[in-house]
Amino acid sequence: MEQLEIDEQYMRKALQEAEAACQKGEIPIGAVVVCKGRIISRAHNLTETLHDVTAHAEMQAITAAADLLGGKYLTDCTLYVTVEPCTMCAGAIGWAQVPRIVYGAPDEKRGYRHYAPHAMHPRADIVGGILEDECRELMQKFFRDKR
Amino acid sequence: MEQLEIDEQYMRKALQEAEAACQKGEIPIGAVVVCKGRIISRAHNLTETLHDVTAHAEMQAITAAADLLGGKYLTDCTLYVTVEPCTMCAGAIGWAQVPRIVYGAPDEKRGYRHYAPHAMHPRADIVGGILEDECRELMQKFFRDKR
Repeated sequence: MEQLEIDEQYMRKALQEAEAACQKGEIPIGAVVVCKGRIISRAHNLTETLHDVTAHAEMQAITAAADLLGGKYLTDCTLYVTVEPCTMCAGAIGWAQVPRIVYGAPDEKRGYRHYAPHAMHPRADIVGGILEDECRELMQKFFRDKR
Repeated sequence: MEQLEIDEQYMRKALQEAEAACQKGEIPIGAVVVCKGRIISRAHNLTETLHDVTAHAEMQAITAAADLLGGKYLTDCTLYVTVEPCTMCAGAIGWAQVPRIVYGAPDEKRGYRHYAPHAMHPRADIVGGILEDECRELMQKFFRDKR
Protein backbone atom coordinates (compact mmCIF):
# COMPACT_ATOMS: atom_id res chain seq x y z
CA MET A 1 0.00 0.00 0.00
CA GLU A 2 1.07 3.55 -0.67
CA GLN A 3 1.84 5.73 2.37
CA LEU A 4 -1.14 7.99 1.61
CA GLU A 5 -3.45 4.99 1.59
CA ILE A 6 -2.02 3.75 4.89
CA ASP A 7 -2.39 7.20 6.42
CA GLU A 8 -6.01 7.44 5.28
CA GLN A 9 -6.75 4.01 6.70
CA TYR A 10 -5.48 4.97 10.15
CA MET A 11 -7.10 8.39 9.96
CA ARG A 12 -10.43 6.59 9.48
CA LYS A 13 -9.81 4.89 12.82
CA ALA A 14 -9.11 8.27 14.39
CA LEU A 15 -12.34 9.56 12.80
CA GLN A 16 -14.27 6.70 14.42
CA GLU A 17 -12.91 7.93 17.74
CA ALA A 18 -13.95 11.48 16.89
CA GLU A 19 -17.47 10.22 16.17
CA ALA A 20 -17.53 8.46 19.54
CA ALA A 21 -16.62 11.78 21.18
CA CYS A 22 -19.40 13.51 19.26
CA GLN A 23 -21.99 11.06 20.53
CA LYS A 24 -21.01 12.00 24.11
CA GLY A 25 -21.36 15.72 23.40
CA GLU A 26 -17.58 16.15 23.32
CA ILE A 27 -15.74 18.21 20.71
CA PRO A 28 -15.21 15.53 18.04
CA ILE A 29 -11.49 14.90 17.91
CA GLY A 30 -10.00 11.43 17.84
CA ALA A 31 -6.50 10.00 17.81
CA VAL A 32 -4.72 6.69 17.37
CA VAL A 33 -1.10 5.71 17.91
CA VAL A 34 0.37 3.19 15.50
CA CYS A 35 3.53 1.23 16.26
CA LYS A 36 5.07 -1.06 13.64
CA GLY A 37 1.85 -1.48 11.71
CA ARG A 38 -0.37 -1.99 14.72
CA ILE A 39 -2.74 0.39 16.52
CA ILE A 40 -1.56 0.41 20.13
CA SER A 41 -3.90 3.08 21.49
CA ARG A 42 -7.02 4.97 20.48
CA ALA A 43 -8.70 7.81 22.30
CA HIS A 44 -11.09 10.69 21.92
CA ASN A 45 -11.54 14.02 23.55
CA LEU A 46 -13.11 13.74 27.02
CA THR A 47 -12.64 17.23 28.45
CA GLU A 48 -16.32 17.69 29.32
CA THR A 49 -16.93 14.19 30.71
CA LEU A 50 -13.83 14.34 32.91
CA HIS A 51 -13.97 18.11 33.63
CA ASP A 52 -10.34 18.12 32.61
CA VAL A 53 -8.76 20.42 30.05
CA THR A 54 -5.86 18.00 29.69
CA ALA A 55 -8.09 15.14 28.43
CA HIS A 56 -7.48 15.85 24.75
CA ALA A 57 -7.49 12.86 22.40
CA GLU A 58 -3.73 13.08 21.77
CA MET A 59 -2.83 13.29 25.46
CA GLN A 60 -4.81 10.20 26.30
CA ALA A 61 -3.53 8.31 23.25
CA ILE A 62 0.07 9.13 24.18
CA THR A 63 -0.41 8.13 27.82
CA ALA A 64 -2.10 4.84 26.86
CA ALA A 65 0.53 4.00 24.22
CA ALA A 66 3.40 4.63 26.65
CA ASP A 67 1.64 2.55 29.26
CA LEU A 68 1.32 -0.32 26.80
CA LEU A 69 4.94 -0.07 25.67
CA GLY A 70 6.21 0.31 29.22
CA GLY A 71 8.35 3.33 28.45
CA LYS A 72 7.64 6.99 28.05
CA TYR A 73 9.13 7.55 24.60
CA LEU A 74 7.15 6.75 21.46
CA THR A 75 10.12 6.78 19.10
CA ASP A 76 8.74 4.00 16.83
CA CYS A 77 5.24 5.40 16.60
CA THR A 78 3.05 7.52 14.38
CA LEU A 79 0.32 9.62 15.96
CA TYR A 80 -2.82 10.19 13.92
CA VAL A 81 -5.21 12.89 15.04
CA THR A 82 -8.24 14.31 13.25
CA VAL A 83 -7.44 17.96 14.02
CA GLU A 84 -4.13 19.83 14.23
CA PRO A 85 -2.76 19.51 17.79
CA CYS A 86 -2.93 22.48 20.17
CA THR A 87 0.07 23.93 22.04
CA MET A 88 -0.38 21.56 24.98
CA CYS A 89 -0.59 18.46 22.81
CA ALA A 90 2.29 19.55 20.59
CA GLY A 91 4.37 19.92 23.75
CA ALA A 92 3.43 16.41 24.86
CA ILE A 93 4.19 15.02 21.40
CA GLY A 94 7.57 16.69 21.62
CA TRP A 95 8.33 15.22 25.06
CA ALA A 96 7.27 11.76 23.85
CA GLN A 97 9.63 12.12 20.88
CA VAL A 98 6.98 10.98 18.40
CA PRO A 99 8.83 10.99 15.06
CA ARG A 100 5.77 11.16 12.78
CA ILE A 101 2.53 13.07 13.27
CA VAL A 102 -0.38 12.94 10.83
CA TYR A 103 -3.34 15.25 11.30
CA GLY A 104 -6.54 15.88 9.39
CA ALA A 105 -7.99 19.39 9.54
CA PRO A 106 -5.84 22.39 10.38
CA ASP A 107 -6.91 24.49 13.39
CA GLU A 108 -6.26 28.09 12.54
CA LYS A 109 -7.41 29.36 15.95
CA ARG A 110 -5.77 27.06 18.50
CA GLY A 111 -3.35 24.97 16.45
CA TYR A 112 0.27 24.61 17.52
CA ARG A 113 1.61 26.07 14.27
CA HIS A 114 0.58 29.54 15.37
CA TYR A 115 1.44 29.34 19.07
CA ALA A 116 4.31 26.89 19.32
CA PRO A 117 5.67 26.00 15.87
CA HIS A 118 8.83 24.43 17.33
CA ALA A 119 7.20 22.38 20.09
CA MET A 120 7.64 19.03 18.39
CA HIS A 121 10.93 17.30 17.72
CA PRO A 122 12.97 19.27 15.16
CA ARG A 123 13.29 16.19 12.93
CA ALA A 124 9.64 15.07 13.29
CA ASP A 125 7.83 14.37 10.05
CA ILE A 126 4.52 16.24 10.23
CA VAL A 127 1.81 15.64 7.64
CA GLY A 128 -1.44 17.64 7.60
CA GLY A 129 -4.57 17.44 5.48
CA ILE A 130 -5.24 13.67 5.53
CA LEU A 131 -9.04 13.22 5.16
CA GLU A 132 -9.18 16.92 5.92
CA ASP A 133 -12.75 17.41 4.66
CA GLU A 134 -14.25 14.62 6.79
CA CYS A 135 -12.32 15.75 9.85
CA ARG A 136 -13.37 19.37 9.41
CA GLU A 137 -16.97 18.53 8.56
CA LEU A 138 -17.38 16.59 11.81
CA MET A 139 -16.15 19.63 13.76
CA GLN A 140 -18.33 22.06 11.84
CA LYS A 141 -21.43 19.90 12.26
CA PHE A 142 -20.78 19.66 16.00
CA PHE A 143 -20.56 23.41 16.45
CA ARG A 144 -23.51 24.03 14.12
CA ASP A 145 -25.69 21.67 16.17
CA LYS A 146 -24.53 23.36 19.40
CA ARG A 147 -25.98 26.73 18.38
CA MET B 1 0.55 39.61 54.72
CA GLU B 2 2.21 41.14 51.71
CA GLN B 3 1.66 39.38 48.36
CA LEU B 4 5.35 38.45 48.15
CA GLU B 5 5.17 36.83 51.56
CA ILE B 6 2.04 34.90 50.57
CA ASP B 7 3.68 33.79 47.32
CA GLU B 8 6.78 32.60 49.15
CA GLN B 9 4.64 30.69 51.63
CA TYR B 10 2.85 28.76 48.86
CA MET B 11 6.07 28.29 46.91
CA ARG B 12 7.48 26.54 49.98
CA LYS B 13 4.61 24.07 49.70
CA ALA B 14 5.46 23.54 46.04
CA LEU B 15 9.10 23.04 47.05
CA GLN B 16 8.02 20.32 49.49
CA GLU B 17 6.39 18.56 46.54
CA ALA B 18 9.57 18.99 44.50
CA GLU B 19 11.53 17.38 47.32
CA ALA B 20 9.09 14.46 47.36
CA ALA B 21 9.72 14.02 43.62
CA CYS B 22 13.48 14.08 44.23
CA GLN B 23 13.23 11.30 46.78
CA LYS B 24 11.59 9.12 44.14
CA GLY B 25 14.32 9.83 41.60
CA GLU B 26 12.03 12.16 39.66
CA ILE B 27 13.13 15.54 38.30
CA PRO B 28 12.33 17.72 41.32
CA ILE B 29 9.47 19.96 40.28
CA GLY B 30 6.43 20.55 42.45
CA ALA B 31 3.21 22.51 42.10
CA VAL B 32 0.24 23.59 44.17
CA VAL B 33 -3.05 25.18 43.17
CA VAL B 34 -4.50 27.75 45.55
CA CYS B 35 -8.14 28.81 45.45
CA LYS B 36 -9.42 31.60 47.71
CA GLY B 37 -6.62 31.22 50.23
CA ARG B 38 -6.71 27.42 50.34
CA ILE B 39 -4.47 24.82 48.72
CA ILE B 40 -6.82 22.63 46.69
CA SER B 41 -4.22 20.42 45.01
CA ARG B 42 -0.56 19.58 45.26
CA ALA B 43 1.48 17.40 42.93
CA HIS B 44 4.98 16.58 41.82
CA ASN B 45 6.56 15.31 38.67
CA LEU B 46 5.96 11.59 38.15
CA THR B 47 7.09 11.06 34.55
CA GLU B 48 9.50 8.24 35.41
CA THR B 49 7.25 6.43 37.86
CA LEU B 50 4.28 6.51 35.51
CA HIS B 51 6.28 6.22 32.26
CA ASP B 52 4.25 9.19 31.11
CA VAL B 53 5.64 12.39 29.64
CA THR B 54 2.37 14.15 30.49
CA ALA B 55 2.75 13.55 34.24
CA HIS B 56 4.36 16.93 34.97
CA ALA B 57 3.60 18.52 38.33
CA GLU B 58 1.44 21.27 36.79
CA MET B 59 -0.65 18.85 34.71
CA GLN B 60 -1.48 16.72 37.70
CA ALA B 61 -2.15 19.74 39.91
CA ILE B 62 -4.53 21.19 37.32
CA THR B 63 -6.37 17.89 36.83
CA ALA B 64 -6.73 17.35 40.58
CA ALA B 65 -7.88 20.93 41.21
CA ALA B 66 -10.52 20.74 38.47
CA ASP B 67 -11.68 17.40 39.82
CA LEU B 68 -12.09 18.90 43.27
CA LEU B 69 -13.93 21.98 41.99
CA GLY B 70 -16.10 19.91 39.65
CA GLY B 71 -15.44 22.10 36.63
CA LYS B 72 -12.63 22.34 34.18
CA TYR B 73 -11.83 26.06 34.52
CA LEU B 74 -9.60 27.33 37.32
CA THR B 75 -10.59 30.98 37.01
CA ASP B 76 -10.30 31.71 40.75
CA CYS B 77 -6.99 29.96 41.24
CA THR B 78 -3.29 30.64 41.40
CA LEU B 79 -0.86 27.97 40.24
CA TYR B 80 2.50 27.82 42.00
CA VAL B 81 5.24 25.77 40.39
CA THR B 82 8.91 25.57 41.30
CA VAL B 83 10.18 25.77 37.70
CA GLU B 84 8.94 27.74 34.69
CA PRO B 85 6.29 25.66 32.88
CA CYS B 86 7.12 23.95 29.59
CA THR B 87 5.12 24.36 26.38
CA MET B 88 2.76 21.50 27.24
CA CYS B 89 2.02 22.81 30.71
CA ALA B 90 1.65 26.40 29.51
CA GLY B 91 -0.92 25.13 27.00
CA ALA B 92 -2.82 23.33 29.75
CA ILE B 93 -2.66 26.42 32.00
CA GLY B 94 -4.08 28.42 29.10
CA TRP B 95 -6.95 25.96 28.52
CA ALA B 96 -7.75 25.95 32.26
CA GLN B 97 -7.86 29.77 32.20
CA VAL B 98 -5.66 30.08 35.27
CA PRO B 99 -5.48 33.83 35.88
CA ARG B 100 -2.31 33.88 37.98
CA ILE B 101 0.82 31.77 37.65
CA VAL B 102 3.78 32.00 40.02
CA TYR B 103 6.97 30.11 39.25
CA GLY B 104 10.34 29.80 40.92
CA ALA B 105 13.34 29.19 38.66
CA PRO B 106 13.29 30.08 34.97
CA ASP B 107 13.94 27.23 32.51
CA GLU B 108 16.01 28.66 29.70
CA LYS B 109 16.08 25.38 27.77
CA ARG B 110 12.51 24.06 27.83
CA GLY B 111 10.51 26.92 29.31
CA TYR B 112 7.34 28.17 27.59
CA ARG B 113 8.69 31.71 27.21
CA HIS B 114 10.97 30.57 24.44
CA TYR B 115 8.69 28.07 22.68
CA ALA B 116 5.17 29.35 23.28
CA PRO B 117 5.21 32.80 24.86
CA HIS B 118 1.48 33.35 24.16
CA ALA B 119 0.19 29.96 25.34
CA MET B 120 -1.35 31.25 28.55
CA HIS B 121 -4.34 33.57 28.80
CA PRO B 122 -3.46 37.02 27.41
CA ARG B 123 -4.54 38.67 30.67
CA ALA B 124 -2.88 36.13 32.97
CA ASP B 125 -0.65 37.59 35.66
CA ILE B 126 2.64 35.70 35.52
CA VAL B 127 5.26 36.12 38.24
CA GLY B 128 8.66 34.41 38.05
CA GLY B 129 11.59 34.26 40.45
CA ILE B 130 9.82 33.46 43.72
CA LEU B 131 12.30 31.47 45.87
CA GLU B 132 14.27 31.14 42.65
CA ASP B 133 17.53 30.09 44.32
CA GLU B 134 15.99 27.23 46.32
CA CYS B 135 14.02 26.01 43.30
CA ARG B 136 17.08 26.10 41.04
CA GLU B 137 19.39 24.58 43.62
CA LEU B 138 17.11 21.54 44.00
CA MET B 139 17.24 20.99 40.22
CA GLN B 140 21.00 21.49 40.02
CA LYS B 141 21.64 19.12 42.91
CA PHE B 142 19.44 16.47 41.26
CA PHE B 143 21.30 16.60 37.97
CA ARG B 144 24.70 16.82 39.71
CA ASP B 145 23.91 13.65 41.69
CA LYS B 146 22.74 11.90 38.51
CA ARG B 147 26.14 12.22 36.86
